[in-house]
Amino acid sequence: MSKGTVVLAYSGGLDTSCILVWLKEQGYSVIAYLANIGQDEDFEAARKKAESLGATKVFIEDLRAEFVEDFIWPAIQANAVYEDRYLLGTAVARPCIGRRQVEIARREGAQFVSHGATGKGNDQIRFELTCYALYPEVKIIAPWRIPEFYNRFRGRKDLMEYAQSHAPADLYLMTKNPEDAPSAPDVLEIEFKIGVPVKVTNVKEGISKDSPLDIFTYLNEIGGKHGVGRIDIVENRFIGMKSRGIYETPGGTILLNVHLDIEAFTMDKEVRRVKQGLGIKFSELVYNGFWYSPECDFVRHCIAMSQVNVEGKVQLSVFKGQVYILGRESPKSLYNEELVSMDVQGDYDPCDASGFIRINAVRLREYHRLQGFPSIKQ
Amino acid sequence: MSKGTVVLAYSGGLDTSCILVWLKEQGYSVIAYLANIGQDEDFEAARKKAESLGATKVFIEDLRAEFVEDFIWPAIQANAVYEDRYLLGTAVARPCIGRRQVEIARREGAQFVSHGATGKGNDQIRFELTCYALYPEVKIIAPWRIPEFYNRFRGRKDLMEYAQSHAPADLYLMTKNPEDAPSAPDVLEIEFKIGVPVKVTNVKEGISKDSPLDIFTYLNEIGGKHGVGRIDIVENRFIGMKSRGIYETPGGTILLNVHLDIEAFTMDKEVRRVKQGLGIKFSELVYNGFWYSPECDFVRHCIAMSQVNVEGKVQLSVFKGQVYILGRESPKSLYNEELVSMDVQGDYDPCDASGFIRINAVRLREYHRLQGFPSIKQ
Amino acid sequence: MSKGTVVLAYSGGLDTSCILVWLKEQGYSVIAYLANIGQDEDFEAARKKAESLGATKVFIEDLRAEFVEDFIWPAIQANAVYEDRYLLGTAVARPCIGRRQVEIARREGAQFVSHGATGKGNDQIRFELTCYALYPEVKIIAPWRIPEFYNRFRGRKDLMEYAQSHAPADLYLMTKNPEDAPSAPDVLEIEFKIGVPVKVTNVKEGISKDSPLDIFTYLNEIGGKHGVGRIDIVENRFIGMKSRGIYETPGGTILLNVHLDIEAFTMDKEVRRVKQGLGIKFSELVYNGFWYSPECDFVRHCIAMSQVNVEGKVQLSVFKGQVYILGRESPKSLYNEELVSMDVQGDYDPCDASGFIRINAVRLREYHRLQGFPSIKQ
Amino acid sequence: MSKGTVVLAYSGGLDTSCILVWLKEQGYSVIAYLANIGQDEDFEAARKKAESLGATKVFIEDLRAEFVEDFIWPAIQANAVYEDRYLLGTAVARPCIGRRQVEIARREGAQFVSHGATGKGNDQIRFELTCYALYPEVKIIAPWRIPEFYNRFRGRKDLMEYAQSHAPADLYLMTKNPEDAPSAPDVLEIEFKIGVPVKVTNVKEGISKDSPLDIFTYLNEIGGKHGVGRIDIVENRFIGMKSRGIYETPGGTILLNVHLDIEAFTMDKEVRRVKQGLGIKFSELVYNGFWYSPECDFVRHCIAMSQVNVEGKVQLSVFKGQVYILGRESPKSLYNEELVSMDVQGDYDPCDASGFIRINAVRLREYHRLQGFPSIKQ
Repeated sequence: MSKGTVVLAYSGGLDTSCILVWLKEQGYSVIAYLANIGQDEDFEAARKKAESLGATKVFIEDLRAEFVEDFIWPAIQANAVYEDRYLLGTAVARPCIGRRQVEIARREGAQFVSHGATGKGNDQIRFELTCYALYPEVKIIAPWRIPEFYNRFRGRKDLMEYAQSHAPADLYLMTKNPEDAPSAPDVLEIEFKIGVPVKVTNVKEGISKDSPLDIFTYLNEIGGKHGVGRIDIVENRFIGMKSRGIYETPGGTILLNVHLDIEAFTMDKEVRRVKQGLGIKFSELVYNGFWYSPECDFVRHCIAMSQVNVEGKVQLSVFKGQVYILGRESPKSLYNEELVSMDVQGDYDPCDASGFIRINAVRLREYHRLQGFPSIKQ
Repeated sequence: MSKGTVVLAYSGGLDTSCILVWLKEQGYSVIAYLANIGQDEDFEAARKKAESLGATKVFIEDLRAEFVEDFIWPAIQANAVYEDRYLLGTAVARPCIGRRQVEIARREGAQFVSHGATGKGNDQIRFELTCYALYPEVKIIAPWRIPEFYNRFRGRKDLMEYAQSHAPADLYLMTKNPEDAPSAPDVLEIEFKIGVPVKVTNVKEGISKDSPLDIFTYLNEIGGKHGVGRIDIVENRFIGMKSRGIYETPGGTILLNVHLDIEAFTMDKEVRRVKQGLGIKFSELVYNGFWYSPECDFVRHCIAMSQVNVEGKVQLSVFKGQVYILGRESPKSLYNEELVSMDVQGDYDPCDASGFIRINAVRLREYHRLQGFPSIKQ
Repeated sequence: MSKGTVVLAYSGGLDTSCILVWLKEQGYSVIAYLANIGQDEDFEAARKKAESLGATKVFIEDLRAEFVEDFIWPAIQANAVYEDRYLLGTAVARPCIGRRQVEIARREGAQFVSHGATGKGNDQIRFELTCYALYPEVKIIAPWRIPEFYNRFRGRKDLMEYAQSHAPADLYLMTKNPEDAPSAPDVLEIEFKIGVPVKVTNVKEGISKDSPLDIFTYLNEIGGKHGVGRIDIVENRFIGMKSRGIYETPGGTILLNVHLDIEAFTMDKEVRRVKQGLGIKFSELVYNGFWYSPECDFVRHCIAMSQVNVEGKVQLSVFKGQVYILGRESPKSLYNEELVSMDVQGDYDPCDASGFIRINAVRLREYHRLQGFPSIKQ
Repeated sequence: MSKGTVVLAYSGGLDTSCILVWLKEQGYSVIAYLANIGQDEDFEAARKKAESLGATKVFIEDLRAEFVEDFIWPAIQANAVYEDRYLLGTAVARPCIGRRQVEIARREGAQFVSHGATGKGNDQIRFELTCYALYPEVKIIAPWRIPEFYNRFRGRKDLMEYAQSHAPADLYLMTKNPEDAPSAPDVLEIEFKIGVPVKVTNVKEGISKDSPLDIFTYLNEIGGKHGVGRIDIVENRFIGMKSRGIYETPGGTILLNVHLDIEAFTMDKEVRRVKQGLGIKFSELVYNGFWYSPECDFVRHCIAMSQVNVEGKVQLSVFKGQVYILGRESPKSLYNEELVSMDVQGDYDPCDASGFIRINAVRLREYHRLQGFPSIKQ
């Protein structure tokens, strides 16, 4: 007699294979669900493996296009960076994967979902908050938090973790070592509309891409070839531990740089300041697993609204791990070469600047007179 | 009969030479003041030129050490970056230069100060707010905002501006083109105390520096050699115009990266979040010329307070325009390898994470139940 | 030969009457424009006075409804309060008045606008930024900043100012002294949709109002009768001076209290936190005169978006200067009495709270272990 | 054989008496700890009751002075208000009570602490985070989250809760109903140094108090007499539930109003803006139980630093639930009556305001020209 049906987020690896078997042992009927978000994987082999391990059904879902459009693009609009450095790769993938998993669970009448994320990490939270938000009655089985499971399998886990965490050089799957990267740059032009890329062109090679998935894939390829987007950081997990993370985000790094540039060119100064604060908030929410929350929803819509005029083309070169902006152009540019030029006065009267400065100084002069500047006695 | 004495911020160039002569013509007695903040300049030639043009006195002031310690170091502590990209080079120099100018003016009994900054830029504001804040009664002569001056000299100015703005390749004085940079990295170790560097060591070459000025100079040299810190951006000036800026900040870029790293390693997560907001505020204030303001003072002291445990060593390599963090160590580290490890449970109970997640989900589940998630209908 | 046409914001008082005459003396053709935003004024007498002083045309514009709907309602949605205390009365009126003035100027082909705001205040800025934003080519004549005018009329101005600033007791036009207010409260019910009031009912008296203007007028009346919304504060003007302000905002104070209440009842906790920050930003922008700016536009739209579920009814009493919330109800309530009750466990497991707390404590315990809590040695 | 010693936060009521007995039943040795933070309680009766129930020791600790100085005063400096309305009474008391409890536990060699806070509330979190932060190895027994306890005692709890939550009129212990308050105001003068009150004088009655505890007690008395500080709100608990709260904070409400006033009078405008943000952060941290956290420590020290010049006297009247500011004076005032006066020009040149406004309009005019103002098409 089955305890019920579980939809398991299955990776094809040893880890979730153990979970699949263990869930069956516990009396559940298991549906294996494998999300394709662009990782390098033999999906058919994974399907066979899941079937051979006793999955009642196997769903292999191609989420690549919706991952780029519904999740990466909003992160680009937000200039999403966690703690000034981390570009949120996995954090953005989790709600995408979880959303489909919940859809499958509802459709298949499964009351349970399960995953292989560990008990000290962020991914368990991102996964589960997504599930609870979109399927409030769901029951979640997190084997790496269940003593009977982890006491039995810990050895194996240790091994896997060991492999991962003691071999950083091998960790990089997408990016070349910058020292081994080509000694000539690639020159690209990326076109934006409403803050998202709509076309990328490799200027010298004449290649161009214009669907979201193709654009992102191509930027990962070019960025990877030139060793762009590797970082080695210490970050603060949501649960309050510091952990070391080694990440590579080649396409994301290019897009962050380029989006910052076209945004600065087309967005009003003060709108940008407000939006910068919202972007930091968005990054924290996504990192912590709150993609599907009212506040993330709200912030995301505000950010999207700010992007209405973020359109134009940016030229850039990619070389030895770096992205260099070469120029930009836009029909919505707020940059007025004449206004800012020394050669042209236009209707700008330099005398106004005197008044502007003196009014700004009213407060400073008063303060000096009345309370003094302690700092000058530093 | 003299109209009074002016202390002129003199650069030795054509621009401020014209101003010197014009001020004399207008009936002022002129003291030329030339600040050495590390720029490449023949100071003695400048002295002779100022004397020959009729300066009553010439002060050449070596501000290099105080520039690094009193101005650059606080900016490093703040991770100061304006509009996500600009590292504030000139913005930080202006209050340093202005502070001394005001000291000279007070000492010499001069009621006037003057400068060669133009009427559409930020530097006029940074300069003048510093002067008004520290010498509230001072009178400022800004020739590029006085019609009699600029109508007469505009041609010349145009020429100078033209030279500057139409030759970006030549603009880079400190940094090599990354394409021409060495094909082997330099590996450095930088040691921090209270958030500022106290020592830099070139690991392979065995060179080390330990005074603030030497450290900063050396990092400029190494960064410059490897083409680190070049940017081409559009930024928003305080007066509300967008302008294009091409900057190089080799030493500053290295220090920003390294300080971010040691800070993340030693600073509590939530302190870092509050401090990040203060750092953005600080950057805006400094960019806009408010170094000497009560609020900048306040923010700077708050930031300094946050740095009390930011200490340790960071290893890094510098290569082809990039800075790579290789590792870090600190007696004040908050990173606990054992706590975060999969291998060790310690007194961390993974079951707690279930409660943590479920409590975080209370609100999300309720929201879904009561008002729904519009976003899912994207 | 006329220098051109000026649209003058005319109040009917001595002050702007002097300006009207002076503008004519200077050779302008003057259109008098008098905005009715609900002030107590004999508009027909003002019309005759303007005509007798030589205005070529007189426009008396009833802006009362648009003032409430387009300006006060968004301020209510924002919970707009400047510097924690000031409810922004005049600051909100200025862009409303300026908008129509600019429309008249465009329609009548006038190149100039003028006003009677003084040279140290906020209103000159609010007025002029509105005009520049909506009519960028307009020329503004601000007589109180023109030496020929203010040197001649200063005496008179002094007199007027004196009258205003030395008689605070008389300053209150709308509100009774709370000590003289009725000794029995009025009990109201206010209904909201999308964050704005759609109906007010006086429960005991059976009166109800349901157009924006009627609602606001009625709340001013009831609030005034009970002495609600008087403050005596020191505030910081945009130009950096502190000034003393004595204000009365009876209807606005009731609405602020009631809107805060229905918002807390229907808005998600974390959305509220983000929106609170936007509301503070909005208040500063409006106070400083930036109603018509890209950033205020952006913030206002974000805030409006947050109000979509802010709907329901609030019961309150108004008594002796105070507003007391008695209760609230809403179809969009996020308050779940059962969830929060001690009597009902539902699917809330108290054990989850243990995990929640222990995970929140991970960081605190580590911090204590590694760096200690200086504060405890206070 | 004892399981060990527990220090129980004992209230003298039925609730914690049950816990005391139950803990003994479970095999613990129980120390009863009763904190006197100013509540109305027969402490000696409580001591006898605890002894009779089997407490091995009873500590009755007078924390009144330290509660005011170490906890309430910093909250006053911060203008601490949670969600725009709640003045944080209990939230501030918990870390004070917990700190002493942990001191007793350490001194007495107890490994356990216990409390009577319920499983859905904020107090459990405030209590336990304090304990974990200051005594990281402590073990916490929270009976209302332990099924064996709450299943047995729930009935009783229900009863107690019922009594509390269905009789709001009786809930007010400190404040009179404003309708029944005196019909003549009390007029006070409160003197501040470094942002905290150092003296209160009842102007008419000639009474004055100058120790922190006496000042706070007196303000509670006067505020209570006039019905000041009652609120009925819906708030968001840390765990994400909305709950209804009925609070009275008579002394705190007076102090909040008065501190806001003296702060506005003596603090620079822009320092105030930064500090306002820190105050909101502080309020959230304290509400959520993070008084003893690195970030709260940091924020508290920043706020304290902002208060160095917050000194002077405020005159106020208290009447029928309201606090009216009558005036203020300070040796550190930044209010300059001459500077702001219309009568005196001083070295303020009104023409500067024209330049100030025109420079502020540069961006707005450009924006209108290039992208237009969507808002005007509202």
